[in-house]
Amino acid sequence: MRAVDIIRKKRDGQELSREEIEFLVRGATRDTIPDYQLSAFLMATLLRGMTPAEVATLTGAMLRSGEVLDFSELPGKKVDKHSTGGVGDKTSLILAPIVAAAGVKVPMISGRGLGHSGGTLDKLESIPGFNVNLSLREFRSVLETCGCGLIGQTPEIAPADKKLYALRDVTATVESPALICGSIMSKKLAEGIDALALDVKTGNGAFMKKQADAEHLAQLLVDTGTRMGKKVVALITNMDQPLGRKVGNALEVEESIEVLRGGGQADLRDLSLELSAWMLLLGESVRTIEEGRELAAMMISTGSALEKFREIIRLQGGDERVVDDTLRLPQARHKAYIKAKSPGYLARVDCEQVGVASMLLGGGREKKEDSIDHAVGLVVEKRLGERVVAGDTLVTIYYNLDQRLPPAVGLLERSFHIEDSPSAVPPLIHKILS
Amino acid sequence: MRAVDIIRKKRDGQELSREEIEFLVRGATRDTIPDYQLSAFLMATLLRGMTPAEVATLTGAMLRSGEVLDFSELPGKKVDKHSTGGVGDKTSLILAPIVAAAGVKVPMISGRGLGHSGGTLDKLESIPGFNVNLSLREFRSVLETCGCGLIGQTPEIAPADKKLYALRDVTATVESPALICGSIMSKKLAEGIDALALDVKTGNGAFMKKQADAEHLAQLLVDTGTRMGKKVVALITNMDQPLGRKVGNALEVEESIEVLRGGGQADLRDLSLELSAWMLLLGESVRTIEEGRELAAMMISTGSALEKFREIIRLQGGDERVVDDTLRLPQARHKAYIKAKSPGYLARVDCEQVGVASMLLGGGREKKEDSIDHAVGLVVEKRLGERVVAGDTLVTIYYNLDQRLPPAVGLLERSFHIEDSPSAVPPLIHKILS
Repeated sequence: MRAVDIIRKKRDGQELSREEIEFLVRGATRDTIPDYQLSAFLMATLLRGMTPAEVATLTGAMLRSGEVLDFSELPGKKVDKHSTGGVGDKTSLILAPIVAAAGVKVPMISGRGLGHSGGTLDKLESIPGFNVNLSLREFRSVLETCGCGLIGQTPEIAPADKKLYALRDVTATVESPALICGSIMSKKLAEGIDALALDVKTGNGAFMKKQADAEHLAQLLVDTGTRMGKKVVALITNMDQPLGRKVGNALEVEESIEVLRGGGQADLRDLSLELSAWMLLLGESVRTIEEGRELAAMMISTGSALEKFREIIRLQGGDERVVDDTLRLPQARHKAYIKAKSPGYLARVDCEQVGVASMLLGGGREKKEDSIDHAVGLVVEKRLGERVVAGDTLVTIYYNLDQRLPPAVGLLERSFHIEDSPSAVPPLIHKILS
Repeated sequence: MRAVDIIRKKRDGQELSREEIEFLVRGATRDTIPDYQLSAFLMATLLRGMTPAEVATLTGAMLRSGEVLDFSELPGKKVDKHSTGGVGDKTSLILAPIVAAAGVKVPMISGRGLGHSGGTLDKLESIPGFNVNLSLREFRSVLETCGCGLIGQTPEIAPADKKLYALRDVTATVESPALICGSIMSKKLAEGIDALALDVKTGNGAFMKKQADAEHLAQLLVDTGTRMGKKVVALITNMDQPLGRKVGNALEVEESIEVLRGGGQADLRDLSLELSAWMLLLGESVRTIEEGRELAAMMISTGSALEKFREIIRLQGGDERVVDDTLRLPQARHKAYIKAKSPGYLARVDCEQVGVASMLLGGGREKKEDSIDHAVGLVVEKRLGERVVAGDTLVTIYYNLDQRLPPAVGLLERSFHIEDSPSAVPPLIHKILS
């Protein structure tokens, strides 16, 4: 078999065989196929697409390129959640303790933030001492003890994805639904889970700006997971404004704790509970989604979820006292405000730019190798559709370095659009696919 | 400027700017853009295409990636011919002496054979002592002395093409008209010519099987050359059977000498004269194509072209006596025959397979690094449409190594199709574009 013939076949829009796809993935993993052939293949795949069968084969081959965890000796179902990423999206920190507290295991392998989008690992690391770099043995032990573990990707998991993802990033082939699906699902299914809830974001702060694109990807993810014998559900959710009020690493941990304490803003709480409910249903801890919602809410009202979060932090080496005293999280030295210049209604937020503003403050990475400042970020004080009086604070900025403030302020001032009459506010959950 | 952004733009079907195309070609030449980005760009270009303006910019950038010869101090016009390649296509060896004898200079930089298709350099090297590896200084001197020089590509000419061609070969991006055009025209225009005649082959022995594809490429080549200030004409010619009777390096030199002596088979003679006539017209040695045809024919009938060929051979270090005695060319030790099994008409020849058969005998290369046997090859004894009696010889095979015979015989036996009634024979010249 020759790589060039497989590239040609895909270039001409033909369906690849299992053997051909496995040959390519094996070649990528073992470095026996040069990068220049892989990148031509990636571009041909982006432009010609793949059938659902090809995507499932690709995902399976990428999954088996590395270690596949097996938690079958641990009692109960294992369920995870994956989000395609957005601004202020901290639901993982809330739903993992909720679901684990309700008895369904959550072995969660997460990523770091890049560009306008944050990452669960960075948020967790704003908790003093929290270690996301557990070995697979330590991860197994934490999962066994408390029903949940939160770590970063290890070298053993889906090495083919590491290779292909790095190439996609520099060859403008990130946006292919087939390749996105292979990347997401190979990593998630390597966690040894029985089921997966997907939060596919759409809107101006999401990777998929158009709802149709988000639905197409969601359906592909669901189909692929199902073909591979997993139960998968996908929620198409809105990202036309940040989720919750707070954006930035320590600030998002603080807001997650607020929700786990029974408070927090409605959209963040609702979506966290809805995703938890689906995870509980997928994990067969409840029989209906309504029961799931009740059980999830109960985990908060009884304090079980908060206690679970405390336990997770302790087991992963973090300072568990942050649960009671969020001032133990890193605090920024300075505050600044973005004020409304005119009265009216908050009609539109350039959500992606809000994420970029947080990055510019030091809360995110422009390039992979950048370091981040966990303390900085911003609090969005108004929601879409809300009445605004001139002089109202739209955003509170938390910053450390003076020189980082002006670019963020400039961006934020251009990102909040006030109009004379209220406009329709998009629903939080557009659709559920399963 | 970042390569990834240019790749994305082409991926999305947008027209690239001059600066973007020049950035890529410069990066390819200087190795500052990695191969994996170049190959993604090549695949995006193949699948999305390029506008005529982009193709001209690409060609110009590739041309200027290396040395551009300048023969303007030599009197008279300089004209070359390029063929897209076929089986038995030896017109360069015939028209170069004809045109040079008529006073138009022919600075010809040619290639080697690969796969089913032969190469002018390999054919010339079957003449004992003939040196195609002249330095550019020696090339200039030969051209000045006799009006024609025949050499191989030097490292100074279009290095961007060398880099991109090697990548195209292994990434299934050879077939892009834009990239083919850039490759052909950048090398040809580097010869310092005023005009170019193109022989774009179509048919089952050509690179472009479909006439529409050949015409599309031909038009692109003509447009690109014209945009770059050169006079260009393209002949779309048939390649449903080998051109002339002989296929193989020494055999093709022999047949070229037959034509230069006033003999040879009609199709080979006609096409060589027609291409010569266009070159004479482009070179402003004649005022009409009819005059060109007359002048070209006269160069043969007066023996001037044969004497010019002798002079070229001598100046490039070859044994000029082959012109009088073709037995001085390498001779194969053995002959074998493919005979007609049934009577009828020769209805179809798998022309590409005839070229492959010559390659299998050792007359061509399967891979670039293969060496070749100049003596071997085959003589096709029947033409399309010709009446055949059972037992007639269809092909005479010239071979040296016994083990190379059976695969070639098997292939040739399957490549000549005899039917009960005669079918239409395609015209030699389908169309002329200028």
